[in-house]
Amino acid sequence: MNYLEEKILREGVIRPGNILKIDNFLNHQIQIDVMRFIAQEFKTRFAGTEITKILTIEASGIAIATMLGNSLDVPVVFAKKSETLNSSDDKYISQAYSFTHKKQNKVFVSAPYLSASDHVLIVDDFLAEGEAVHALIDITRQAGATIAGIGIAVEKGHQSGGRKLREEGYHLESIAIIEEMDYENQTIKFRS
Amino acid sequence: MNYLEEKILREGVIRPGNILKIDNFLNHQIQIDVMRFIAQEFKTRFAGTEITKILTIEASGIAIATMLGNSLDVPVVFAKKSETLNSSDDKYISQAYSFTHKKQNKVFVSAPYLSASDHVLIVDDFLAEGEAVHALIDITRQAGATIAGIGIAVEKGHQSGGRKLREEGYHLESIAIIEEMDYENQTIKFRS
Repeated sequence: MNYLEEKILREGVIRPGNILKIDNFLNHQIQIDVMRFIAQEFKTRFAGTEITKILTIEASGIAIATMLGNSLDVPVVFAKKSETLNSSDDKYISQAYSFTHKKQNKVFVSAPYLSASDHVLIVDDFLAEGEAVHALIDITRQAGATIAGIGIAVEKGHQSGGRKLREEGYHLESIAIIEEMDYENQTIKFRS
Repeated sequence: MNYLEEKILREGVIRPGNILKIDNFLNHQIQIDVMRFIAQEFKTRFAGTEITKILTIEASGIAIATMLGNSLDVPVVFAKKSETLNSSDDKYISQAYSFTHKKQNKVFVSAPYLSASDHVLIVDDFLAEGEAVHALIDITRQAGATIAGIGIAVEKGHQSGGRKLREEGYHLESIAIIEEMDYENQTIKFRS
């Protein structure tokens, strides 16, 4: 069992409706030792892969992406979820349904920050149905850039996002893959 | 002129309505060398100050806070801007008007992540009217924690947020303070 899995067992809380709360170290409070571990794991697992840019989506993904960017010395771009007044440039736009917030989000990256020569490592905190990652893939493709791989902290292995991405041939690395979660007993089983 | 000020002059874009876009290195793309400089500046400027927690607000503040947390080996907490389904715990709640998005945001931190024994360094990317920082101060006070200081990357010195915070007696450190911006000529003057 790796360090992230141990943290999830110790500090994660299972809520009704298949929700795993890891607010204590990743989604609200950010514990630096966990961030360092995640960044180091991605660095090891994608060693030898050309990476010129790390792409994530606001908000929780930013901490992981920044730690990894620091470790790899590569710039980070975070996709934004809504139009803002000071974002009037050309953009790559995609859609992602948020099961947490029960709404369709418009997701965009301004055109200057991804180019056809980029090799993009997509990272995010959670992977469940894969909505956010597919939006980031779509945006990367619109830019004509290469997808170097996908790095996920916590994959919900009983949902379909990870399986689909592997079938599609992407190099997907998930540091903790949850096989089963049980709300009644507050137990979690990881894929080995 | 410091490294952040140089980056703003070289890569910042002034938009009508007193808007400074630094999406190229902070608010959309995150350049690691700038993040390292900002974290190092805060570390130096708050040296000798007891800090047990770094508090910021999603989204852009997270990158700065995470780099500083890594540098100081202190956990980060980011305030959230809207209720989510998996945030049903006790919370400290405040309000901040966003001039960018022209709406009142509810801002909250779940109670377990700030305690009366914490010494909190509040950090954010921008300070203009000080709405977000005042919400973070309010939340810190609700938790009964001590405010160790306030670290800002870019202060708009011609707006009132920074002046008020200094008058209120807070230890405020802004790495770049913009005294004047001119849209027509795309010029920026910093406070020395």
